[in-house]
Amino acid sequence: MKDYSAESLELHEKLKGKISISLKTELETKNDLTLCYSPGVAEPVRQIANDIEKVWDLTIKGNMVAVVSDGSAILGLGNLGPEAAIPVMEGKAMLFKKFADVDAFPICLNTQNTEEIIQTIRNIAPVFGGINLEDISSPRCFEIEERLQTLGIPVFHDDQHGTAIVVLAGIVNACKLLNKKIEELNVVINGAGAAGLAITKLLICNDVDKDVCTPVNQIIMCDSKGIIHRDRSDLNDFKREILKYTNPNNTKGTLKTALKNADVFIGVSQANQLTTEDVMTMNPQPIIFPLANPIPEISPEAAYKGGAGVVGTGRSDIPNQINNVLAFPGIFKGALEIRARRITPRMKVAAAYAIADCVQELSRDHIIPSTLDLNVAKNVAQAVKDAYVEDMKRLETPKHAL
Amino acid sequence: MKDYSAESLELHEKLKGKISISLKTELETKNDLTLCYSPGVAEPVRQIANDIEKVWDLTIKGNMVAVVSDGSAILGLGNLGPEAAIPVMEGKAMLFKKFADVDAFPICLNTQNTEEIIQTIRNIAPVFGGINLEDISSPRCFEIEERLQTLGIPVFHDDQHGTAIVVLAGIVNACKLLNKKIEELNVVINGAGAAGLAITKLLICNDVDKDVCTPVNQIIMCDSKGIIHRDRSDLNDFKREILKYTNPNNTKGTLKTALKNADVFIGVSQANQLTTEDVMTMNPQPIIFPLANPIPEISPEAAYKGGAGVVGTGRSDIPNQINNVLAFPGIFKGALEIRARRITPRMKVAAAYAIADCVQELSRDHIIPSTLDLNVAKNVAQAVKDAYVEDMKRLETPKHAL
Repeated sequence: MKDYSAESLELHEKLKGKISISLKTELETKNDLTLCYSPGVAEPVRQIANDIEKVWDLTIKGNMVAVVSDGSAILGLGNLGPEAAIPVMEGKAMLFKKFADVDAFPICLNTQNTEEIIQTIRNIAPVFGGINLEDISSPRCFEIEERLQTLGIPVFHDDQHGTAIVVLAGIVNACKLLNKKIEELNVVINGAGAAGLAITKLLICNDVDKDVCTPVNQIIMCDSKGIIHRDRSDLNDFKREILKYTNPNNTKGTLKTALKNADVFIGVSQANQLTTEDVMTMNPQPIIFPLANPIPEISPEAAYKGGAGVVGTGRSDIPNQINNVLAFPGIFKGALEIRARRITPRMKVAAAYAIADCVQELSRDHIIPSTLDLNVAKNVAQAVKDAYVEDMKRLETPKHAL
Repeated sequence: MKDYSAESLELHEKLKGKISISLKTELETKNDLTLCYSPGVAEPVRQIANDIEKVWDLTIKGNMVAVVSDGSAILGLGNLGPEAAIPVMEGKAMLFKKFADVDAFPICLNTQNTEEIIQTIRNIAPVFGGINLEDISSPRCFEIEERLQTLGIPVFHDDQHGTAIVVLAGIVNACKLLNKKIEELNVVINGAGAAGLAITKLLICNDVDKDVCTPVNQIIMCDSKGIIHRDRSDLNDFKREILKYTNPNNTKGTLKTALKNADVFIGVSQANQLTTEDVMTMNPQPIIFPLANPIPEISPEAAYKGGAGVVGTGRSDIPNQINNVLAFPGIFKGALEIRARRITPRMKVAAAYAIADCVQELSRDHIIPSTLDLNVAKNVAQAVKDAYVEDMKRLETPKHAL
């Protein structure tokens, strides 16, 4: 793979920041100053003071997302602190703008304390219409996201749900291509981190009505010690929670054991975990998503040699890139346009199916839309809005909980 | 005065936010994505992790200011909360961009607790090169600004120092115009608020070497009960502090008493506090800065009728507008360019003299530069940088404290 390091560093040195602030109207005359600032600005101020909902109509809030990180899990590089996270969060803000015309601003936090992170996000929330959590290490990321669901604006940890949504989109299209049925899939997930749990919950339609979401037959999750099962004595709370959703027959053994009779392999672990021989032990034409970056759990060549039906990776230079950028811009765009108070499970499923629908002619090299396809965010936004409207309708009927 | 309310509201409804995020480079190809985001972005991340100072070269930090308010003292409208503050802080961000090409982002805080405000600003500081505090009520604004001076980036409460700096600029030019000497001025300040204290400290050269700053002869401050003197039993801690810098002869009486033999009246109070007859009791050709907005303490006509030498107000439709926008854009521009760790007293004085120097031909209607003069911020930035360099030099000599 080409080494982009030197070129990227040079670009960052030249730009000194990849985003800037622009004015949406001229500021040339005293009249402009008067209308945009004092004394004219007093009127929108009074309007908002009298009716706080007007903040959505009169300020940047309605189209502004905070991209928030504490720098504890930057890309695959680890806990490098808030300053080192800034280039990534700026890049994320660029993607929001480019793909969804959503304004986003990087907030990198000088604390890794869960309570302080939650309090700080609550304190800065007034100017934002949504919060995109990013590169916050597990397990703190779960509690932070969970407890901020009452904030009144969408709070979405992209490393969990963004990946999960694009994985589901890939599985939907892989099933169409290979004539498989989602409800019959046996799935193996290698890597018991935040993304693994989010993928699991989405694939089993956790918290979603089954009329909009088809659960897979079964999921088995593996960590570096092998299959996660009930009789292991080395499981932390997080892995115990994973057991609620996986391995219903309490299968024991290694990754190799799990792969027998599996239809799907999803890797969220590290390089070179899967061999051609492993793929050969799976059901015919298995779906192989080795997502470790930059080196996948298995190369597409090796997987296809073992009989893979379709392969998708995290790499931009290989067909079928499973990339969050297909999900989060459209999800926030839709959520902001409909002023959603949170991102519901139904919205996540709708986003996945909308991404899948963006691929017109399916082929082995094309089950996932291109990351540069500007239509994806539009379609995802519309699907997400429709899903939220449906959620609101069902909320009115007491038997359905949101 | 024209009522701009309806027109301003209409503009805000149309714009839905007066600023937006722009990309500083194209994001069209996979190569662009790779350089600005993953995997290329890993290299600037690593560089910053290895040397945190590189955050200034590789990210937006070096040109990004947070405009922070808790909505407790919005314009003259009072405590209307953080959402209502957003239109003002967006306007402020526009001024930063327009006049100094400094990027600024509004942060409106969902707390009015001093400790929480300080902690929140500390927590979000990594992405900012400076903090402009705005519309935070007194006395909390003093403690917040004071305690954040150790943050390592400039923290500047504009409502205090911005006004004070432009007032000093006005006095410098008024003295030139009227052949007065700063060191002989007796000054009366009506209004014992945050701005009044900041003006006082700047006019007496508090904390500044006297070789760069000429103190006025004497200041008397009045509140609604009259002159603030040592024998009053109704003074709070704040007014007791004011006494450290004012009224050395412990003069007692009303505003009218104070005005006798005064050369300067500065109003930071409310409409209609001064009469033509009051001005007539002052020394010849007094300098009159009635800054209450929108209705000054005395109209320019009434002041000139009483013999005023020159009048400046807060109004944009009257000559000699004393407006913060002449100060803060250039101050932050200079501070960011030289990566100042704080705004020192010397920098404030330098800014005032730089603003004064921007007026080429002094006249009664022109002692203050136009708020639309784009040269002001440039000159202020240069003066502020020079002052900081001088401060750093003197820091190296032990006998001078910064």
